[in-house]
Amino acid sequence: MNIKNTNITIAFTTLLVIALSSMTEAKEKTIDITAFGARSGDGSDTAPAVCAALEQCRKVKARKLVFPKGRYDFRPDRASEKYMYVSNNDESLKRIAFLLSGIENLEIDGQGSELIFHGFIAPFVLDHSKNITLKNFSMDWTRTFHSEGVILDVKDDSIDVFFSEKFPYRIENGTLVFIDSDKIVYPFGSWLEFDSKKRETAYQAQDYGTRQNIPAQEIGKGRVRLMRPKLKATVGNVFVFGAAHRLCPGITISDSIDTKITGVNIYHCGGMGVIAQRSRNIELDQVKVTPSPDSGRVVSITADATHFVNCTGKIIMSNCLFENQKDDATNIHGIYARVIKQLAPNEIEVKLVHPQQHGFDFIKPGIKLELVHGPSVITYGEVVVKSVLRLNKEFTRVVFKADLPKELVEGDAVASMDGYPEVNINHCIIRNNRARGILLGSRARMVIEDNTFHTPGAAILFEGDARYWYEQAGVRDCIIRRNVFDNCNFGVWGNSCIQVGSGIDKSCRANSRYNRGIVIEDNTFKIFDPRILNIYSVDGLIFRNNKIENSSSYPEQHKDAKAFEITDSDNVKIEEK
Amino acid sequence: MNIKNTNITIAFTTLLVIALSSMTEAKEKTIDITAFGARSGDGSDTAPAVCAALEQCRKVKARKLVFPKGRYDFRPDRASEKYMYVSNNDESLKRIAFLLSGIENLEIDGQGSELIFHGFIAPFVLDHSKNITLKNFSMDWTRTFHSEGVILDVKDDSIDVFFSEKFPYRIENGTLVFIDSDKIVYPFGSWLEFDSKKRETAYQAQDYGTRQNIPAQEIGKGRVRLMRPKLKATVGNVFVFGAAHRLCPGITISDSIDTKITGVNIYHCGGMGVIAQRSRNIELDQVKVTPSPDSGRVVSITADATHFVNCTGKIIMSNCLFENQKDDATNIHGIYARVIKQLAPNEIEVKLVHPQQHGFDFIKPGIKLELVHGPSVITYGEVVVKSVLRLNKEFTRVVFKADLPKELVEGDAVASMDGYPEVNINHCIIRNNRARGILLGSRARMVIEDNTFHTPGAAILFEGDARYWYEQAGVRDCIIRRNVFDNCNFGVWGNSCIQVGSGIDKSCRANSRYNRGIVIEDNTFKIFDPRILNIYSVDGLIFRNNKIENSSSYPEQHKDAKAFEITDSDNVKIEEK
Repeated sequence: MNIKNTNITIAFTTLLVIALSSMTEAKEKTIDITAFGARSGDGSDTAPAVCAALEQCRKVKARKLVFPKGRYDFRPDRASEKYMYVSNNDESLKRIAFLLSGIENLEIDGQGSELIFHGFIAPFVLDHSKNITLKNFSMDWTRTFHSEGVILDVKDDSIDVFFSEKFPYRIENGTLVFIDSDKIVYPFGSWLEFDSKKRETAYQAQDYGTRQNIPAQEIGKGRVRLMRPKLKATVGNVFVFGAAHRLCPGITISDSIDTKITGVNIYHCGGMGVIAQRSRNIELDQVKVTPSPDSGRVVSITADATHFVNCTGKIIMSNCLFENQKDDATNIHGIYARVIKQLAPNEIEVKLVHPQQHGFDFIKPGIKLELVHGPSVITYGEVVVKSVLRLNKEFTRVVFKADLPKELVEGDAVASMDGYPEVNINHCIIRNNRARGILLGSRARMVIEDNTFHTPGAAILFEGDARYWYEQAGVRDCIIRRNVFDNCNFGVWGNSCIQVGSGIDKSCRANSRYNRGIVIEDNTFKIFDPRILNIYSVDGLIFRNNKIENSSSYPEQHKDAKAFEITDSDNVKIEEK
Repeated sequence: MNIKNTNITIAFTTLLVIALSSMTEAKEKTIDITAFGARSGDGSDTAPAVCAALEQCRKVKARKLVFPKGRYDFRPDRASEKYMYVSNNDESLKRIAFLLSGIENLEIDGQGSELIFHGFIAPFVLDHSKNITLKNFSMDWTRTFHSEGVILDVKDDSIDVFFSEKFPYRIENGTLVFIDSDKIVYPFGSWLEFDSKKRETAYQAQDYGTRQNIPAQEIGKGRVRLMRPKLKATVGNVFVFGAAHRLCPGITISDSIDTKITGVNIYHCGGMGVIAQRSRNIELDQVKVTPSPDSGRVVSITADATHFVNCTGKIIMSNCLFENQKDDATNIHGIYARVIKQLAPNEIEVKLVHPQQHGFDFIKPGIKLELVHGPSVITYGEVVVKSVLRLNKEFTRVVFKADLPKELVEGDAVASMDGYPEVNINHCIIRNNRARGILLGSRARMVIEDNTFHTPGAAILFEGDARYWYEQAGVRDCIIRRNVFDNCNFGVWGNSCIQVGSGIDKSCRANSRYNRGIVIEDNTFKIFDPRILNIYSVDGLIFRNNKIENSSSYPEQHKDAKAFEITDSDNVKIEEK
């Protein structure tokens, strides 16, 4: 053997060792759920396998957790558990299928699998996680949190409804109670009529407030007479009995960084589809919120498709479908805490007012807060937090580095200025749901482009208030371009396609300029209702180069209304073609 | 100055320094609640002052926290918060007035103060605390968790009841809802009739199961007609609408060591009066559970006066009064977890079955568990825990140091053998409550002496089962002496003054000897019902030197029954005088 050959041999051996060790590493870094006892297709509970697999992922710092294509069932019995405050959903001690607390650099790949959930279980919770990707799976439930009944008859004093076996119920003490095969109760909230042909909320249908204990009687198999007088409804349509609570959101992203969700179909969940709070950089690509194809249901999920609260970095949603959910397609906003009292020149007590914001602890030492007046939402000061004493999920005491301005009064509010998310929503379809399309409230750049909207309320809404919902909003740089607004406003949740709905007291609107820097260009508006834009308290809006087409898809309404209703605003330019 | 004088001066100065510093120290070590903003008598909320004072107690390692005599009010709004699993009560995210987590060597001295609570707040929680004394105060509520209505009329199909202003209510959707002045709802459970003259549960009264949504109408101010047919009740007596949940126990002692409660009057609370779990050494002296003197109420607290679960060391109760509570005076027992399945030769999965035991994590590495068969409660093995994996509040997986016996089957149960409490209950008065007197289930020495019982059920009960309540019991050395059993069994909760009620399947009683070593001597039994002792599955009982006196306080009942009903037992000696 000459020296050259030896060298080559050594080099080859070295390569082999490197190759083998990297193969071993790759193998170790990819976890197959079936190695932990998961079995697809036989209805067995996958939750314990996920607990064990995630434990292993933590241990070996795995990069991938894969589910060979199949159906995997998940039950709450042996699932993980955590008391969670999830903004705009309902706090509770939750059973969680995938509790990714503190997990980093992991991709969960469903490889096209169906994840089927049973009962009160939340599928995914990212909690102080980093660089997590969820991809290629669908989620659905054996029994939905809401119920759907076909309208058989409408009388003055009652309504007859038919429930298929998918929506089991019982009559208990003379009232209607929804259950599942385990007799677990599914409390219901308001009723809403859906058009069974168009598969969208019925034209101008409104929510009927709930009465859990409404007198009811069974008048045949699956046929129930509800003694509720004076309902308007069309025989053949579907009454949706909304879920009373939002306990089981699909994917919860809390205090996490760098999350990607791609190729995920959310056919159902008991709360919002994707709810993110205090998290940085979130990308959704090809996420579909839609009723499962063979279910025949008119409703997909029980609340907003997506929702982002106090998020930062980038929020990107591309190529998504958000349809038939029981609330908006997305909301992006911060949270205001109400000033209850001043305790010292540099100390206040604040309260998280809305029950679905309780426990939303966003005030941390070192961050900057804005001070706003409740009725006007005008920012009049900025203060840096020195220390925080949390009394409980509602009350917090905050000491600032400097004294507070003299104009601070009880009823003012504080919100974080510690970063706002850049937003890009593109190539999404948003339709047939209850309520509005997208609610925009980030102060960083927001770009809404190439989407299609067919919403019963406003397609795009600028919300925000510090008196009722306590949601911080107020855009600064928002571009809405190349979208199609296809016959929006066929329901009761809006007064134009693009609308300001901020909770600014009327007496303050002349002075408040809450939303600023909006450009609406190159869009197409297909309308049966002339109302395109309704804004107030805006500084800077350009409407240009948009196409407006008349439509006869719905009965003409508000035919004498103005296309552009603009009050208490500056620097608004409307260029009609 | 001569040397002598100098020395004296030095000595004096030294003494002064020592005296001053110890005064300072004493001062620092005693915290006055009024220094933290608490004000008595004006209705202001004392909860924030307590939070701040306890924080200071932690910081300076204070020895005393004193309340100058007065009335102090406590509201849930700004109280501390913790999700608590409290055995035999209801788990919840609780607001807590005194959350003594991790506090050591502190005496809280009320100096005769009244602590008045508003709404859903738990007064005291000791949690991993050490050497805590609570003394000299009373606790009561502005609105009780239960409600009391005077029976006005009883018809075949309905009952009319009068509620004073102390028990506010509203008729909602045609049903009765109890509220307080803030309109907070107080859900109710079963109904129970109390004798308004004797101020005890009515003779032979039984619980009526609840129907929250029972049709009701207001027929006058405070007068409500409840459409519940076929109730038996006496006009002039009081119907008590029990609290549906046990969310706000009076004093919770969890995982704590050396607790003393003395001179404390528990006039009301929403759960048990004193509930202790996994704690060592607890002494109650002059604790009174009784309706507040001027309230006119027939019920004190809504559940057991005291209750001890998996406690160790010593439990001493002296000179206490437990009356008019809606359940027993005390229960002392452990917890069984049900064996769900065997996972490996040395591994099982267990479940905490009863919802009020969920989250009761008693299985720790290193402790010894007994293995028992469910139906017989016979101990057939002892195993030492190697490791524990808690899945959630219900399911736990346990690995043992050695393989499990072959006879282990699903449905068996495990319980801790890691110490049982020595118990002494003396000079207590137990009367007029719902249900039984004391339920004894410690395997260490239990001495019950010089007490007076006047209970509607059994005065002393030996319970325990591994199939329904899952409460570990089975005494080994129990002395019952010099007590007076004064007309017990006037209700429906027992079959004799002293009774075994263990849930041993009838087919197993011949072989099971669950309770052992009981001595009953020098007691007085005043009876209108001949049934004194009813036992089964006992090994070793001596009944001697007891006085039996006939009484005509109640209608004679069961006159042909045997005084001593003894089956499936060994070594029982009854010596009648």
